[in-house]
Amino acid sequence: SKSNEPAPAPPVVHYHMNKLTTSRTPIANKETVLILTPLTRFYQGYWDNLLKLSYPHEYISLGFIIPKTKEGNQAYAALQAQVTKTQSGPKAKRFASITILRQDTENPLQSQNEAERHKLENQKARRAAMAKARNSLLFTTMGPTTSWILWMDADIVETPASLIQDLAAYDVPIIAPNVFQRFYNNEKKAMDIRPYDYNNWVDSPTAQAMAAKMGKDEVLFEGYNEMATYRSLMVMMYDPSADPTTKVKLDGVGGATLLVKAEVHRDGAMFPAFPFYHLIETEGFAKMAARLNWASYGLPHYLVYHYNE
Amino acid sequence: SKSNEPAPAPPVVHYHMNKLTTSRTPIANKETVLILTPLTRFYQGYWDNLLKLSYPHEYISLGFIIPKTKEGNQAYAALQAQVTKTQSGPKAKRFASITILRQDTENPLQSQNEAERHKLENQKARRAAMAKARNSLLFTTMGPTTSWILWMDADIVETPASLIQDLAAYDVPIIAPNVFQRFYNNEKKAMDIRPYDYNNWVDSPTAQAMAAKMGKDEVLFEGYNEMATYRSLMVMMYDPSADPTTKVKLDGVGGATLLVKAEVHRDGAMFPAFPFYHLIETEGFAKMAARLNWASYGLPHYLVYHYNE
Ligand SMILES: Nc1nc2c(ncn2[C@@H]2O[C@H](COP(=O)(O)OP(=O)(O)O)[C@@H](O)[C@H]2O)c(=O)[nH]1
Ligand SMILES: Nc1nc2c(ncn2[C@@H]2O[C@H](COP(=O)(O)OP(=O)(O)O)[C@@H](O)[C@H]2O)c(=O)[nH]1
Ligand SMILES: [Mn+2]
Ligand SMILES: [Mn+2]
Repeated sequence: SKSNEPAPAPPVVHYHMNKLTTSRTPIANKETVLILTPLTRFYQGYWDNLLKLSYPHEYISLGFIIPKTKEGNQAYAALQAQVTKTQSGPKAKRFASITILRQDTENPLQSQNEAERHKLENQKARRAAMAKARNSLLFTTMGPTTSWILWMDADIVETPASLIQDLAAYDVPIIAPNVFQRFYNNEKKAMDIRPYDYNNWVDSPTAQAMAAKMGKDEVLFEGYNEMATYRSLMVMMYDPSADPTTKVKLDGVGGATLLVKAEVHRDGAMFPAFPFYHLIETEGFAKMAARLNWASYGLPHYLVYHYNE
Repeated sequence: SKSNEPAPAPPVVHYHMNKLTTSRTPIANKETVLILTPLTRFYQGYWDNLLKLSYPHEYISLGFIIPKTKEGNQAYAALQAQVTKTQSGPKAKRFASITILRQDTENPLQSQNEAERHKLENQKARRAAMAKARNSLLFTTMGPTTSWILWMDADIVETPASLIQDLAAYDVPIIAPNVFQRFYNNEKKAMDIRPYDYNNWVDSPTAQAMAAKMGKDEVLFEGYNEMATYRSLMVMMYDPSADPTTKVKLDGVGGATLLVKAEVHRDGAMFPAFPFYHLIETEGFAKMAARLNWASYGLPHYLVYHYNE
């Protein structure tokens, strides 16, 4: 564990960005993937799922940003233990590199339970703080050899092992799987699944009209009855009997699991911490990417799972 | 010269961002400065000026982005020759690290002479391309140990040797010296100086009113008679008899020479390649930083000099 010593760098490095590919066959082209995770709580299920990813770990780098709070310190210790174990374990499971940033925010939000953090009045400050954390992590860790960025929240505990290959195969700038949650259905007396991430959506005339009437600094949030937008939510499009490879074009995206071509970020697309077309954070990112002519897509019938508190 | 091989990274690196300072005494705190230069033409005067900077070179890293054009190839070769010479010369003059990116833009703008590139009808495309080049360079080279970013155009050929210390001493988020140009004044039959960079300005009610009437995708450019904004231009504030340490608050900035605290960029402030409040590139950057509560300042009586074609 080194503390703020710059890694020794060779005096001159030349990079030919046009030789850096971002293709539908990323393994064959040895494309590097940077998995970025803002983290306040450590879940073993998240780490175990990461270890199971079948994309060659030698092409995967990990980046974390953890707030300087009591909870963040606990998460940091738990992460560090797993990192040490993995990086000294079997070579095939080791990741190319791991960067852990401790956040220097003056007033980090205290972590909240699901109900509290989803309250509308808490959204603007919380999403702005998240946006800054994501930008800090992105600007600090993306390097000249990064082909793909996989945004993966710390509470995503189950994905197909072939997640990266599956998403990259679509060869689109930005792509999101559908984020669900497993739960015990008391009526059915059995495990079941339900929608989790409402930030993947197709815009609606209603939402557009609401935005047009809003004050300059107001933000439109998704998933609140007080603010019915009639956007088409990807979580609502899920159909287990449909062609699982179907993709839809999205206007807003979530960051829980999101594969982005590095050139999208390099052009300047980031997570606005201020209202951008009345959108913020990951939803604002999709809009900013669109302004830079990069389209977002979603896979309504391809599921990943969020932890159930 | 390595080609796209990732530099060997230690398996795990921890960074405590709160220990990373950005202070008015950067040398005492061993703060690292990343000098970023988009480059199409190489001027020996630029390199010589860089070598003369008295900030310890061991804390300075350099980053360049050079387009894949015939002119870019020439600039690349000239830069490489100087880099090799410097990095194998006296230790005190060597920089900590140097990264050179070759731009993968599909249609890089052909470099233009001063008259051509300043034509209003060429501004939007040119400034958007510049914005993307700056973002690519920034997102790719900023690391976890970077305290400051000094934006420095390749045609800035003369600054005080203490430039970095002088600007950092103001301890403000964003600060620009005044960019002038030396020329031979035929009337006076002597060398003289004249304003060069019109992008450092204080906003005006006229410009605000013009922006309010503009179409969503229109951009307001500074320094064109067709579009008189009545903004207060920093180049016009220069007074050789005034207190040289005077600073003014700016609403728009240029990128020819600009010192930025790394946390400003880390929060997400970048160079919009799309109209952002009817501003683009460096002027849009100042506006975006302002939206993130980071203020910009200028030093009207502290001069640096642009090459005279
Ligand atoms: N660094 C950092 N990460 C955070 C912060 N708040 C939440 N996170 C992480 O960001 C991700 C999304 O946050 P979460 O609360 O799960 O959002 P939700 O599932 O959309 O309600 C998760 O990986 C969290 O661990 C924060 O203040 N700082
Ligand atoms: N990478 C890159 N650099 C460029 C490009 N066009 C100009 N530059 C560089 O960007 C900086 C600003 O451009 P310049 O033409 O001097 O702008 P002006 O002085 O404001 O007219 C200079 O350092 C140029 O060498 C480009 O297309 N790509
Ligand atoms: Mn979550
Ligand atoms: Mn210039």
